[in-house]
Amino acid sequence: MKVKPLGDKVLVEVLKAEEKTKGGIILPDTAKEEKTEGKVVAVGPGKSLESGSFQPLEVKAGDKVIFGKYSGDEIVIEGTKHKILKENEILAVFE
Amino acid sequence: MKVKPLGDKVLVEVLKAEEKTKGGIILPDTAKEEKTEGKVVAVGPGKSLESGSFQPLEVKAGDKVIFGKYSGDEIVIEGTKHKILKENEILAVFE
Amino acid sequence: MKVKPLGDKVLVEVLKAEEKTKGGIILPDTAKEEKTEGKVVAVGPGKSLESGSFQPLEVKAGDKVIFGKYSGDEIVIEGTKHKILKENEILAVFE
Amino acid sequence: MKVKPLGDKVLVEVLKAEEKTKGGIILPDTAKEEKTEGKVVAVGPGKSLESGSFQPLEVKAGDKVIFGKYSGDEIVIEGTKHKILKENEILAVFE
Amino acid sequence: MKVKPLGDKVLVEVLKAEEKTKGGIILPDTAKEEKTEGKVVAVGPGKSLESGSFQPLEVKAGDKVIFGKYSGDEIVIEGTKHKILKENEILAVFE
Amino acid sequence: MKVKPLGDKVLVEVLKAEEKTKGGIILPDTAKEEKTEGKVVAVGPGKSLESGSFQPLEVKAGDKVIFGKYSGDEIVIEGTKHKILKENEILAVFE
Amino acid sequence: MKVKPLGDKVLVEVLKAEEKTKGGIILPDTAKEEKTEGKVVAVGPGKSLESGSFQPLEVKAGDKVIFGKYSGDEIVIEGTKHKILKENEILAVFE
Repeated sequence: MKVKPLGDKVLVEVLKAEEKTKGGIILPDTAKEEKTEGKVVAVGPGKSLESGSFQPLEVKAGDKVIFGKYSGDEIVIEGTKHKILKENEILAVFE
Repeated sequence: MKVKPLGDKVLVEVLKAEEKTKGGIILPDTAKEEKTEGKVVAVGPGKSLESGSFQPLEVKAGDKVIFGKYSGDEIVIEGTKHKILKENEILAVFE
Repeated sequence: MKVKPLGDKVLVEVLKAEEKTKGGIILPDTAKEEKTEGKVVAVGPGKSLESGSFQPLEVKAGDKVIFGKYSGDEIVIEGTKHKILKENEILAVFE
Repeated sequence: MKVKPLGDKVLVEVLKAEEKTKGGIILPDTAKEEKTEGKVVAVGPGKSLESGSFQPLEVKAGDKVIFGKYSGDEIVIEGTKHKILKENEILAVFE
Repeated sequence: MKVKPLGDKVLVEVLKAEEKTKGGIILPDTAKEEKTEGKVVAVGPGKSLESGSFQPLEVKAGDKVIFGKYSGDEIVIEGTKHKILKENEILAVFE
Repeated sequence: MKVKPLGDKVLVEVLKAEEKTKGGIILPDTAKEEKTEGKVVAVGPGKSLESGSFQPLEVKAGDKVIFGKYSGDEIVIEGTKHKILKENEILAVFE
Repeated sequence: MKVKPLGDKVLVEVLKAEEKTKGGIILPDTAKEEKTEGKVVAVGPGKSLESGSFQPLEVKAGDKVIFGKYSGDEIVIEGTKHKILKENEILAVFE
């Protein structure tokens, strides 16, 4: 099964606790909004421009990303929790 | 009877429970907004651009799509539940 | 008497119950906003563009259209109920 | 005395009951906002465009127009009630 | 002392009761917002455009203008009440 | 120490009572928002344009300006009260 | 570990009390919003333009910046508090 986001939307697999970065990034619950980590699975063609073309997204499949825990729309694909996020809801890519 | 959406609007047939994807995508009720599945029936010419032309939509008739259960406007055509959605209310296309 | 809408506005005659499509489209009252049917009587020159020209509207006189019952502004012309709607308040054209 | 509206503004003389269209247009009080009739007295140069020029207005002096009773700003010129309206507050021109 | 407005702002001297137009324009208190009269003292270079230039204002020093009594920012220059208004807060020029 | 504002922001030294203009401009407390005077210390490169360049600001270091007492963000530099304001929060330059 | 902000976002290390500028800038708590100091660690490619390119940011890694204490999103990287801010949430660069 293949899920293809539209426009500037990004499909992200939400990382489970045991998959999360250890020691490195801590996403404090005390912040305004709890953050979480995910892995980009698929991206839309980009934001549509007045010229009629698309501006490609900055993130690509495989990128590890940080985003607000309550951002975007949650869907479950073959038992795994995913999010559909607008690219500007992604705070950063990390390695 | 033919219903033709305008602009960046999309006419979607809402899938009945028995037509829904099995096993694959689960659209959890616990998410912020309940999601549902549908099949695109007809699309508008696209978003109007400053150049006076239209930016064609990404989705096309026949595409299976995911959207928020309470998004768009509901109409019933020959006994079947449909939605008229703006393309940006569609979260993703799936196969 | 001739009523000419401005800009991207559309003059629509609201169809009476006995003129409404039978069997075909049902516009459920249970939806977020009650829908109704109408026939386009006159259209404005279109949305004004930065180039100084107008983007012609998609609908034309004679088109049968669906719109929200409480959308637009109601006026009565020679005893018949009409609406002045912005084109983007029209959900779809049907035949 | 001459009053010259700016930009996309229009000076409209509000028609008195005895001057109003008879039989033709009825502007029902039961609608969301009461409508009224007026005659355009003067128009601004138009909406300013990014090119630095103006997009001329669609209405011209002498046009009879319909608008919301509480739209725009009321001024009294030589004893006669007028409104200064933005062109997009005018619903339609009628003859 | 010279006060020079920025951008699309206009410095207006608020006319005192005895300087106001007699007989001609009456600015009714019963309207949504009380109007008042003033004389333009100085204007900014205009609204900045995407091209990097300015669109000159329509009003010029010496113009008599009508505006909402509570629009803009009040300053007193050498004992005389003034307003700094954005040009689009000015309803009309009159002679 | 040098503080450099970004974009269309302006660093302004807030004038103390004894430095304020005498007789000339009075900034009445009775107005909607209390005004105050300041001297521009540094300006940002300007508002970013779609062309990728900046539109230079109208104000420059040394200009005496009027602005709302509660506009912008207050910072204290070497004991002296300053404001970081967007240029469009500055009402006028005076001499 | 490398964290790369997207678009016009900036990763800033929040300075600890003992690292803060002494004597120079005081960021008063009494202001509308408490300010704080930080050091830019990484910047996104810039704001996306209609041309499809990016407008590079004004700040660069190493810049010392002032921003509102509650602006942006907090993340902790290897034990150190950081913020992800949009560039326009940064008030100024200082040296």
